[in-house]
Amino acid sequence: MTAHHTGGERSPRLHLLTEAEQTTSFVHTVTVRFGDCDPAAIAYTARIPAWCLEAIEAWWKHHAGFDWYELNIDRGLGTPFVHMRMDFRAPVTPRHPLVCEVIMKRLGHRSITLVVAGVQDGILCFEGEFVSVFVDAKAMKARTPPPDIVERIQQTTRRRAAEPGGRPPQPPTA
Amino acid sequence: MTAHHTGGERSPRLHLLTEAEQTTSFVHTVTVRFGDCDPAAIAYTARIPAWCLEAIEAWWKHHAGFDWYELNIDRGLGTPFVHMRMDFRAPVTPRHPLVCEVIMKRLGHRSITLVVAGVQDGILCFEGEFVSVFVDAKAMKARTPPPDIVERIQQTTRRRAAEPGGRPPQPPTA
Amino acid sequence: MTAHHTGGERSPRLHLLTEAEQTTSFVHTVTVRFGDCDPAAIAYTARIPAWCLEAIEAWWKHHAGFDWYELNIDRGLGTPFVHMRMDFRAPVTPRHPLVCEVIMKRLGHRSITLVVAGVQDGILCFEGEFVSVFVDAKAMKARTPPPDIVERIQQTTRRRAAEPGGRPPQPPTA
Amino acid sequence: MTAHHTGGERSPRLHLLTEAEQTTSFVHTVTVRFGDCDPAAIAYTARIPAWCLEAIEAWWKHHAGFDWYELNIDRGLGTPFVHMRMDFRAPVTPRHPLVCEVIMKRLGHRSITLVVAGVQDGILCFEGEFVSVFVDAKAMKARTPPPDIVERIQQTTRRRAAEPGGRPPQPPTA
Repeated sequence: MTAHHTGGERSPRLHLLTEAEQTTSFVHTVTVRFGDCDPAAIAYTARIPAWCLEAIEAWWKHHAGFDWYELNIDRGLGTPFVHMRMDFRAPVTPRHPLVCEVIMKRLGHRSITLVVAGVQDGILCFEGEFVSVFVDAKAMKARTPPPDIVERIQQTTRRRAAEPGGRPPQPPTA
Repeated sequence: MTAHHTGGERSPRLHLLTEAEQTTSFVHTVTVRFGDCDPAAIAYTARIPAWCLEAIEAWWKHHAGFDWYELNIDRGLGTPFVHMRMDFRAPVTPRHPLVCEVIMKRLGHRSITLVVAGVQDGILCFEGEFVSVFVDAKAMKARTPPPDIVERIQQTTRRRAAEPGGRPPQPPTA
Repeated sequence: MTAHHTGGERSPRLHLLTEAEQTTSFVHTVTVRFGDCDPAAIAYTARIPAWCLEAIEAWWKHHAGFDWYELNIDRGLGTPFVHMRMDFRAPVTPRHPLVCEVIMKRLGHRSITLVVAGVQDGILCFEGEFVSVFVDAKAMKARTPPPDIVERIQQTTRRRAAEPGGRPPQPPTA
Repeated sequence: MTAHHTGGERSPRLHLLTEAEQTTSFVHTVTVRFGDCDPAAIAYTARIPAWCLEAIEAWWKHHAGFDWYELNIDRGLGTPFVHMRMDFRAPVTPRHPLVCEVIMKRLGHRSITLVVAGVQDGILCFEGEFVSVFVDAKAMKARTPPPDIVERIQQTTRRRAAEPGGRPPQPPTA
């Protein structure tokens, strides 16, 4: 969970891994339950970052082909969070599906930034930004993500860009 | 959970309610359990904001004399969060007690800001800032907190300031 | 949550409400997440009754047309659990969908009994029995469930019985 | 989590490990929080088995000297649950501390049975029985518990029996 941005010279190969904001959309829908709500009859606040993490894990499975369990155990890649920031704009209730949109803002050499927006019945309930770093799952030391996973994320997040009228791919960022 | 900062002129009475950073310290200790940890053998990230909220609820009970259940049901006061921001600096494990220090940064007319720092074995594991607004628990509309609760918070958070060598009370902020 | 089986003479109308074991099947599928698992890399035990409750709430929504939030708040009906019994037969992991089959064993005047079986990749992981009583949501006192809800449950749970080859409806039990 | 009661001849040494009902008492106190409660303003049912497990883990730390994290990671011993049974007798709320009494009913060669009773303000809210088996933490295969852990449990659970007026030790059971 520690982020050792040891930096140093970046190889040309690593530079290519850097990916800008996602041009496709990804949605994860949550059914809010009675037990998620508190005596104020709205979802208890601590449930909301938990749902964002659930949506982000679903994002990984869809885009990288691995959920966190598989990434950790099968691929030896940990993605601990180093930062989260959330704004809560309207109460969440079981009255409507909770639609969580996840967008990758940046895929860097050492970290990945995802934003999550939660919408119920057309109303923005919350939005947040989540930054994870890449670590070796055993040693918990900083590493770069495996090239095949980066490539698959790049392909999946740019899919729409190739379609007519699609948003053009963004230039890579540092 | 919505924050309607309707603003407008503040009455002299309301101005007196405003309270600056806490001069006392408050600590809430958590026993991290096996079930709080994930297959990486560290506390799952979503547990951490949940513990911060638990520490903040303990802060309320100690400083205001009411926990959130009592505030909502007995006093009709809701304190929904509108913002949270967290940095995760080191993994949390069951190896040591998790000491959560909570400090009030600001008690305003419409909102309260608290910071939480989580320490294990002398190492800062996480820190965060949490902003809640005051609402009528039924109508979920903005209100000012009851004067007796404000007064008790002021007394409790300044207790140390009156002691010899204590940190002097801070001037009220807007 | 208290069950006051005040008993007394049952009216003919109430007798008709009694319903025997469900002849249809209902399945609720859970995606097991990284955060549901403990350092043994299997789902933490406390997650399992929580999933059973989630599956039972989904059963209510499907069969009665109301989830627990709607039952409590809109219909004034509480269904607190008075008993649960579970056997854990194999570990649950994120490797496969967790298929939870819920069957109503008995719908009585005062209580409802549901059984839940959790299956992953064809292996029975757990099974349990859950008994709830019907109470007035405010007073928490025993009551009979609303006739329209009973009727809808009866229709939904017997649907398959009317189909060719379907299992015949069971005689009502006390 | 699978229980392979392979049985077979028990060695004389193993027979000595068998321990009958605990003659001391152990209490674990829980602070019920706002977020533990549902819109019915009582603790959500799924929280209750979770608290029982928390109380049982505290029992292990006190009696064996290891919590589940230490047992699994440092001692290679898993104690997966194979059975739980609970009766819910009265609602749990944040109004009072939740006092969970844990008593060991039986320590066998392959399994351990613990009962938990939850009391608030003198009222029995729930009681349950929990059966765990001993497994190798990696292979998840049945094993006997380490002798030093058995011995420490035996000493701790019988401590009061040696005191004047203490309850006499029970004869070992199969």
